[in-house]
Amino acid sequence: MSGSLSLDAESLYRDLLRALQPQWGANDRLVGITSGGAWLAERLQADLGLSVPAGVISSAMHRDDFARRGLADGGVTRLPFDIEGAHLWIIDDVLYTGRTVRAVINELYDYGRPARVRLAVLVDRGGRELPIQADCAAARLSLPADQKLSLQRDPDGRLTFSLRG
Amino acid sequence: MSGSLSLDAESLYRDLLRALQPQWGANDRLVGITSGGAWLAERLQADLGLSVPAGVISSAMHRDDFARRGLADGGVTRLPFDIEGAHLWIIDDVLYTGRTVRAVINELYDYGRPARVRLAVLVDRGGRELPIQADCAAARLSLPADQKLSLQRDPDGRLTFSLRG
Repeated sequence: MSGSLSLDAESLYRDLLRALQPQWGANDRLVGITSGGAWLAERLQADLGLSVPAGVISSAMHRDDFARRGLADGGVTRLPFDIEGAHLWIIDDVLYTGRTVRAVINELYDYGRPARVRLAVLVDRGGRELPIQADCAAARLSLPADQKLSLQRDPDGRLTFSLRG
Repeated sequence: MSGSLSLDAESLYRDLLRALQPQWGANDRLVGITSGGAWLAERLQADLGLSVPAGVISSAMHRDDFARRGLADGGVTRLPFDIEGAHLWIIDDVLYTGRTVRAVINELYDYGRPARVRLAVLVDRGGRELPIQADCAAARLSLPADQKLSLQRDPDGRLTFSLRG
């Protein structure tokens, strides 16, 4: 982590878990955005004691800059439950412009029409370009546009943030 | 207006105008959602002194309940400026589930990729089913799901809210 900003991903994860626990509904389902959000959703599934596995979703197919980015994350979407009428929590590591979330919601709609979609993230870094907001964010801060914040996972499963200028 | 709730649409419109004025950028463009949002955008164009006409957008083609609702509002979209790279304010009378806004953003993307889309509404009535939020709302309140709130325009142009149970 460079600069004076220090984001402890493990500590933020515990805050996110604590924030989700009281509002978790019996029929709620987790969908993690690849790759950081999918790691988080996997951890949340265990820590919330959910029997239904978390879904994994890729924004690649619906991104508005698809032509430039291509299938950087492999375009893998796996949804092990019915999306039609589902109560979903989309999980991501960082909320920035909102374009990924828009793409992911459109990807979800390829599978069905969810009854409700909420969004939980570790960090809301500001800089929104679409009117999308997280229902739950463990941290809200403002980062310059030239900084790239992303979640990393060590071989032992420990989560850390990397900030590159 | 039935019940004890009283929403003065004209007074809320003035609040919305006052809230938008200080954050209005020289290159910002208005897009009103049919029909209430389009009435508001028309008024805002005049009151903000904009030379570029407001666009009008319909959510009908991209609504996830298109099969049930059909082209209730005629499906008219008229965008008298380039959407590619544009800084847009979507205007609507009432923000509720967020499904209309999702549909409208997808409709916009049929015309180009805007640089930024913000959302301004007269009333945010709660009840969100998608992680969409207004950047600017003249009133925020909570209404039961069985109440339908919609903007009406008199022949003389005066705006009023109707609330039906």
